[in-house]
Amino acid sequence: MKRRKEGYFDFEHHPNAYLERKRNVEQGLHARTKILETLAMSTPTEAATAAVSNSDEMRENGTELTIKAISESAAMSYSSSFHHLRLLEEEKIVKREGKRPYKWVVTGKGQRSLDELDLGLGVTKMGKELLMIPGPVPVLPRIREAMTKPMIFHRGDEFGAMYEEIVETLKEIFQTRNDLFVLSGSGTCAMEAAIGNLVSNETKMVCIANGKFGERFGEIAVRYKADAVTPVNVNVNFEWGHSIELEAVKEALENSSSSSSDPKSKIVTMVHNETSTGILNPAKEVGKLARKHDAVFVLDCITSIGGDKVPVDELGADIAIVGSQKCMGAPPGLSALSVSEHAWDLICENERRLYYTDLIAYKKSLEKKQTPYTPALPLFFALHEALAVIREEGMENRIERHRGMAKAVRDAVTGFGLRLFPKLNEVSDYSNTVTAIEIPVANGITDEQLRGGMRKRGVIVAGGQEKLKGEIFRIATMGNITEREVMRTLDALEVVLEENNYYGKNSKI
Amino acid sequence: MKRRKEGYFDFEHHPNAYLERKRNVEQGLHARTKILETLAMSTPTEAATAAVSNSDEMRENGTELTIKAISESAAMSYSSSFHHLRLLEEEKIVKREGKRPYKWVVTGKGQRSLDELDLGLGVTKMGKELLMIPGPVPVLPRIREAMTKPMIFHRGDEFGAMYEEIVETLKEIFQTRNDLFVLSGSGTCAMEAAIGNLVSNETKMVCIANGKFGERFGEIAVRYKADAVTPVNVNVNFEWGHSIELEAVKEALENSSSSSSDPKSKIVTMVHNETSTGILNPAKEVGKLARKHDAVFVLDCITSIGGDKVPVDELGADIAIVGSQKCMGAPPGLSALSVSEHAWDLICENERRLYYTDLIAYKKSLEKKQTPYTPALPLFFALHEALAVIREEGMENRIERHRGMAKAVRDAVTGFGLRLFPKLNEVSDYSNTVTAIEIPVANGITDEQLRGGMRKRGVIVAGGQEKLKGEIFRIATMGNITEREVMRTLDALEVVLEENNYYGKNSKI
Repeated sequence: MKRRKEGYFDFEHHPNAYLERKRNVEQGLHARTKILETLAMSTPTEAATAAVSNSDEMRENGTELTIKAISESAAMSYSSSFHHLRLLEEEKIVKREGKRPYKWVVTGKGQRSLDELDLGLGVTKMGKELLMIPGPVPVLPRIREAMTKPMIFHRGDEFGAMYEEIVETLKEIFQTRNDLFVLSGSGTCAMEAAIGNLVSNETKMVCIANGKFGERFGEIAVRYKADAVTPVNVNVNFEWGHSIELEAVKEALENSSSSSSDPKSKIVTMVHNETSTGILNPAKEVGKLARKHDAVFVLDCITSIGGDKVPVDELGADIAIVGSQKCMGAPPGLSALSVSEHAWDLICENERRLYYTDLIAYKKSLEKKQTPYTPALPLFFALHEALAVIREEGMENRIERHRGMAKAVRDAVTGFGLRLFPKLNEVSDYSNTVTAIEIPVANGITDEQLRGGMRKRGVIVAGGQEKLKGEIFRIATMGNITEREVMRTLDALEVVLEENNYYGKNSKI
Repeated sequence: MKRRKEGYFDFEHHPNAYLERKRNVEQGLHARTKILETLAMSTPTEAATAAVSNSDEMRENGTELTIKAISESAAMSYSSSFHHLRLLEEEKIVKREGKRPYKWVVTGKGQRSLDELDLGLGVTKMGKELLMIPGPVPVLPRIREAMTKPMIFHRGDEFGAMYEEIVETLKEIFQTRNDLFVLSGSGTCAMEAAIGNLVSNETKMVCIANGKFGERFGEIAVRYKADAVTPVNVNVNFEWGHSIELEAVKEALENSSSSSSDPKSKIVTMVHNETSTGILNPAKEVGKLARKHDAVFVLDCITSIGGDKVPVDELGADIAIVGSQKCMGAPPGLSALSVSEHAWDLICENERRLYYTDLIAYKKSLEKKQTPYTPALPLFFALHEALAVIREEGMENRIERHRGMAKAVRDAVTGFGLRLFPKLNEVSDYSNTVTAIEIPVANGITDEQLRGGMRKRGVIVAGGQEKLKGEIFRIATMGNITEREVMRTLDALEVVLEENNYYGKNSKI
């Protein structure tokens, strides 16, 4: 029987070593980690078992629990041990029992009640559920509290200054010099905005898809084209979870070129991070092909921007889209999209653009630092604060954190013997923001047992969508969550697998 | 020189008689009102002048300010006077000066610093500005605070229960048995949703308009119809601010019928409460005409539902629309619309419906108590709370309050000698939620002087839109504001008129 792969998180300090009420200096964290590990050795309670997860061998032993014993076992001075025990006591992580010399034990608070903590970045007060779905993600208290601000005049200077700051910060995150707008609507609203502004009956369109969201572009497109009359939509569909093959894309572009009298009116759509299957698609390569054919490249980056490296201009994305409730760590309800000169050429020719998301109206209004129609003010307040959080963390760190969390999930679940769903090729990669995992149906574990069991433990993960329902589940690692939330999720998963006798039945590993 | 028309608010108690820290029983309010009026007589300060507005004659006199003097003047017992003076002192409405026997004076707090108060319904902490524009309206703290709730799974039971409650409550407010959905987008999003779901190239459409928002339906419609090929749009336009004439509507419907091979594919659009001009259009009468011609009647009730009587089914509105940030008193970003069987007939025939606001997708999702795409969760939390506020107040009371506030504005401004903008006929009426007033340009007062002056006094009112810019200004009385906010607005207006020497120049009255 294979147990969890050890050390999938290379964290330096015990999660409970962090103090809520005091500054956490390196030395103190180190000392408290040693104390907590020492206590865990002697406290084979459920709480301690959960708190120190990779210490099976430690639990075998038992030591005295006095300060003296602790200081000796942890190789620390008596006074330092006492000092840090008292700090941990104040935080209700440990308590003393009996009479002098007191015996010290862990209370069980900490790893088990992360909900109660708010240490700043990443550790959110989750209420009763930890949302590990690919949006909406948990939102930091400071971002939620930004929404309590009273309404302001949406045509006034205060809104204008805020909107401008949001737009400029998003441009930095997008790494784009193109125009950029924020829409009061979800990511799907922005996807439709792209198509509904670009596409008229005559537009040639190549929709590349290897999952639900890639196909969505095609679904939207047929609403904007009288296909019966001019069948100019080309769907380049791959099996969900499989990789996009560049040869097929190339072929579709060339065929659609040769049969076309006006090769300039052409659009290529793709999803960068296919949330339904946990695969990262080859944006750069497809961007090159699109440019070669002078096509407008529409790239759905709804679940990549803010969590992964997405240099929009370098990728050649003429329209790039992000959603607020994914890697940006803001609440749902807003989306943003960037528009290149190349895209404007097509948009300006289209007289039957959408109205609510008419991008020309957005462009005109942005000159006055306004939106054409009343913006969803509280969501703008929240996005503004979410962007402040991103600036404080720094995009490099943020991308590292996202990649680290996704890798931790992949390492852990493959360590459990589970299989990742995506079938990679030389140009695709695993998503750095959502991991799609096969449900071990062969081991007799159902979707309901797996996700239902995790839900009972307070962790919500996503199931497979449509044809993948019951076959996969998905763990998102997006936004401002940290290793703590990831660990809680993996702990819940491991417990559920054990409860359902996964290891007993699993003969393959 | 004519001064403000007296008693435009028939309020029983002095605004400052309300205590923040204690319960306000009728008797106490009465006693404190008498005390404050007595004090105002003897305190000809700016603060008192503002606090007691209709007491010109009182200010002429002066009395002693001791408790004894107050109790005699107010015809109250000494002990009762002392008790209530101390309550007012705690609230910093009055203070004592000198030595015993103290002299009591008003501090100026109260009417002048409503911002600081939060007495519950209607009196909001406004921050620095009082928003008296027709949306976004000031939002009660309890509604804003609802948005700090952590994110929930948007496909889970908790969201489902909340969404269902929102939908059912809105149906009651709409007085409709039709289907009803909440869209994550503004009122314009819902207007486009109506047209973009109903209208195909072949649809005959009659757009009735007497203002900016009525015309908006026509603007949206041309995006959905190849008019060059099939010119089937009929715009029945009246001058902005003028009333809709039923004869013209009748004629348009009959003409478009006779020339049409399929009279069933017909739509009539109108705005119920034309926010751009402050006029209430004849919904019932036009509804009857639409029914007679078997047309689908789309009624924009964005600024009427929640503040005025709008029995959707009785009016014959097949699609009725409301916005969250108007009379509902919620933040901007959501809209709701109801859809009748008659409307469904047309929608189901239309294969090129919008995608993000595809009403058939909304209908399917509602069966699972979900929305088709990720809902703007915090705005749903807020709307849910806003509906609780409406239930607590009761729709009858709410409509009365809205009508009372609008009437107070009309009475006051006509009392100032200003002219209301709408030109009524026998089937139109003044709006009960927004009052459009002509800027007294003939008296040398400009838009900037008037609205800019009010803005300097912390009150934001709306200007005229497009062709009406500089000609009118608009005071909205929507949502959870009360007479206090209306009085502050009218006070600011009166001061600005005086400052700009309006009364001196005004020779007509």
